[in-house]
Amino acid sequence: MALMTHPPLLDTEGIFPEDAKERARDLLAGCRGGSVGSYTDSPGMEIIRRHVADYIAERDGAPADWRNVMLCAGASEGIRAVMKLMTNPGIPEGLRASTKRPGVMIPIPQYPLYSASLAEYNMEQVGYYLDESRNWALDVEELERSIKEAKTRCLVRAIVIINPGNPTGQVLTRGNIEAVIKFAQKEKLFIFADEVYQHNVYAEGSKFHSFKKVMSEMGSPYIDMEVASFMSCSKGYMGECGMRGGYAEVVNMDQDVMAMLQKSISAKLCPTVLGQSCMDIVANPPRPGEPSYESWLQEKDDNLASLARRAELVATNLNTIEGFSCNTVQGAMYAFPQLQLPVKAVEAATKAGQFPDVFYAFRLLEATGICVIPGSGFGQKEGTYHFRTTILPQEPMIADMLARLKEFHLHFIEEFS
Amino acid sequence: MALMTHPPLLDTEGIFPEDAKERARDLLAGCRGGSVGSYTDSPGMEIIRRHVADYIAERDGAPADWRNVMLCAGASEGIRAVMKLMTNPGIPEGLRASTKRPGVMIPIPQYPLYSASLAEYNMEQVGYYLDESRNWALDVEELERSIKEAKTRCLVRAIVIINPGNPTGQVLTRGNIEAVIKFAQKEKLFIFADEVYQHNVYAEGSKFHSFKKVMSEMGSPYIDMEVASFMSCSKGYMGECGMRGGYAEVVNMDQDVMAMLQKSISAKLCPTVLGQSCMDIVANPPRPGEPSYESWLQEKDDNLASLARRAELVATNLNTIEGFSCNTVQGAMYAFPQLQLPVKAVEAATKAGQFPDVFYAFRLLEATGICVIPGSGFGQKEGTYHFRTTILPQEPMIADMLARLKEFHLHFIEEFS
Repeated sequence: MALMTHPPLLDTEGIFPEDAKERARDLLAGCRGGSVGSYTDSPGMEIIRRHVADYIAERDGAPADWRNVMLCAGASEGIRAVMKLMTNPGIPEGLRASTKRPGVMIPIPQYPLYSASLAEYNMEQVGYYLDESRNWALDVEELERSIKEAKTRCLVRAIVIINPGNPTGQVLTRGNIEAVIKFAQKEKLFIFADEVYQHNVYAEGSKFHSFKKVMSEMGSPYIDMEVASFMSCSKGYMGECGMRGGYAEVVNMDQDVMAMLQKSISAKLCPTVLGQSCMDIVANPPRPGEPSYESWLQEKDDNLASLARRAELVATNLNTIEGFSCNTVQGAMYAFPQLQLPVKAVEAATKAGQFPDVFYAFRLLEATGICVIPGSGFGQKEGTYHFRTTILPQEPMIADMLARLKEFHLHFIEEFS
Repeated sequence: MALMTHPPLLDTEGIFPEDAKERARDLLAGCRGGSVGSYTDSPGMEIIRRHVADYIAERDGAPADWRNVMLCAGASEGIRAVMKLMTNPGIPEGLRASTKRPGVMIPIPQYPLYSASLAEYNMEQVGYYLDESRNWALDVEELERSIKEAKTRCLVRAIVIINPGNPTGQVLTRGNIEAVIKFAQKEKLFIFADEVYQHNVYAEGSKFHSFKKVMSEMGSPYIDMEVASFMSCSKGYMGECGMRGGYAEVVNMDQDVMAMLQKSISAKLCPTVLGQSCMDIVANPPRPGEPSYESWLQEKDDNLASLARRAELVATNLNTIEGFSCNTVQGAMYAFPQLQLPVKAVEAATKAGQFPDVFYAFRLLEATGICVIPGSGFGQKEGTYHFRTTILPQEPMIADMLARLKEFHLHFIEEFS
C-alpha cells in the first residue's frame, strides 16, 4: 500500500519484496492515471472485484461473478447500502401496497449497526433470540415464533445472520445454515450474511461455512435465492480497520434492483482506493513460492493462534468468577458473559436511572479503568445481564484485566449483598 | 502518506524530506497503536481536526473550534450526514407538527449529489435559479420567489450554496454572500456552504469568501447562525479524490442536534485514516523554510495557473462556436455552456424519447468519443440546453477536444437544419 501511495518507491531496492512491487504495479495499472488519487468506478476497481470473486470461488468451491462484487468503505457501508433497499421512503403512504412498515429480522443479541440502521431507515426491528443455554444456537423454531409475531405489525423482508457471531462468538454448523436458508426460502426473505469474521474460527470442531456455499450445494430452489454476503479487512488476522476496506457479494438480486443499488452508491462517488487495495491484499495474499509468502503465513498463523488462545483464556477465566457464565468463544473477537447481579444492585441502578448492566459497567470503568459494553446495547433476554468484552488485547494484558475484573466483581457483590 | 502507511520508511535516508517525516510522526502519534490500521474517533483524529481548525482560522481571520470540525470520507459524506438531520423519518406522520415534508433550497443548475440525497431522504427539492445572463448570479429576489412558492407545499429548513459554483463556475462576491446570509437569517434557514472549490478561483477580481468569515464579520445576529461548511482534498490544486478526505465545519448547531449528528456518524465507525491524513496535508501544508516548501509551492502555483489558463481556454473557445454561449469560468473546474439546438434536433430527440441535451450528448459521444454531461442532469431553465464539461484535461488535449467538438457541432447543425 505504501508502494501504491508513493509509486517512486517502486524504484527502490532492498526495501520491498518483488511480489509486493508486482501487486502494486498491477493495481496501479487498474487506477485511472496510474494513481490512487483518482476516483474509481463506484463499485470499486475491476481488478480488485475480480480478485475478490476469485477469493470467494476458491473459498466456496462454487463460481463467483466479479460483477456481483461491490467494494465498500468497510463492511458497514455495504450493509447499510443494501439494507436501504429494503425500505420504501419514496412511495407516498397512500400508494403503498400495505400500510405496514418493512421489517428486518436480526439476532438478539446483535451488533448495534443493525438496530441503528433500521431506526435510521424507519424500518421495524424483528428480533430473534439466540439460545444462550446452547452456546447461542440459532433455532428455526425461534425464527418461526419471531416472524409469526412480527407479521401482525410489519412486512418482514429480510433476515440478518452474523456468523461467526458478534457479540456472541458462536459459529453456525452447516446443518444450522441449511435450516436458516430453508426458512428464508419459505418466507421469501432476503439474506444478509454478515461474514466479516470468516477467518476468526478457533474452537475445535467449528468451521466456517459461507451462506453462498451452502446455498450452492443445496441446489434448486435455494441456489437462486437473494443473498448478500459482507466481508471486511477490519477483522480476521489482519485487523486493518482504519483502512476502511470491505466488500459485499450480492447474488441473484433482481436486475432492476441491482441497477438501483449501483445508482444509489454512486452518490458517494467511490470507496477509498487505498481501502479497496487493502481488501485486495486480503483477497489475493502471497502464494507459495513468492518472496513474501513465508513471512505472511507466519504472521497470519501466529495471529490466529494467539487469538484462539485468548478466546479460550477469556472464557475460561470469566467462568471462574462466581455468578459469571460465559459460552465458548468459537469465533469472532468477543466474549459475552452473563452475570448475576444482586437485587440491591438492580435497585441502585433503577434509582440512578440506569439499566443494571450499564450501572455495573460504569462502576467497573470507574474502579478499574476496564471498559466493557453493557449487554443492553446489544439486546438480551429480559432480566438477564451481560456485557461484551473483546479478546483483542495481548495475552499478558488480558490476564491482568481478568484478575482486576474478578477483584472488582467480588467487591461489587459484597457492596450490594 | 506512504510514511504513515509503512512506518519503517521513517528510518530510510534520502527518499523522504525531513518535514514529511516529522508530519508523519506527529500524525502516527495521534493514531491508536501508532498505526493507520486502527479506528479513530468517529469525527476523526483530534490532531487533524485541530489542524483543520487552524487552517480555517488562518483563512478567515476568525476563530474556529476544532470540536466543530468533523472529518469525513470526501465532502459528499459530510454533506449527506448533515442533510439527513433536516428530515424527520423517525416521527410517525400523526405526531408531526406539520404534514408538510421538509424542503431544502438548492441552486439550479446544481451538483446532482443534492437532488439525489434529497430524493433518498424523502425531502422536497426547492430550486432557485441562478441568473445565466449575469454570469450565474445568485439573486435574493429569486430566493424570495422560490421560498414563497415552496412554502405552500413544504417546510423549508435549509439552503445550499455552492461557491465557487458547480457546474456553473461562478464565484460569489462578498456582497452577494451577505445578502444570502440576511435572507437565511430572516427565513431561519440552516446554511450548507459547499466550499470545496475554495482554492479554485481564477478570474481577475474574483476572490473566495467563506460564509463563516462573512457571517463573523457581519456580527450579531448573523454570527450566531447555523452554518455547515464543506471542504475536500478532491479538488483544489491537489485533486486527490481517490483518497476520500474531507471535512465539515458545523457552527452554532444546537448542542442536542450536534450530539445526534455525532451519534449518527458513529454507525460508520470512522472515515478512512489515510483520507483523514490527506485532508491534514491540505490543511497543514509545508511552511516557508521547511525542506518541502519550495517544491510544494511550485507545484501548487503551477497547477492553479494551468487551471486558470484552461478555464479561459475552454470558455473562450466554446464562445467561438456558433450557437454556443459560455459564461466566464471564474472558479471551480467546469464550464456549463448554453447551446441552441435546431427545432428538428429537438423533434428527433423527442421521437427518440430523450431530452434534447441528452440526445446531443450521446451523438457527440458516439461521433467523437467526447463525454459531456447533459444540462438536464443539473437542472436548467425550461427550453434551454446546456452541458457540463470539465477544464481538467491537460492543455493540448483540451485544445484538441474543443476543435473536435466544434467540428461535430457544425455537422450536427447541418444535419438538423
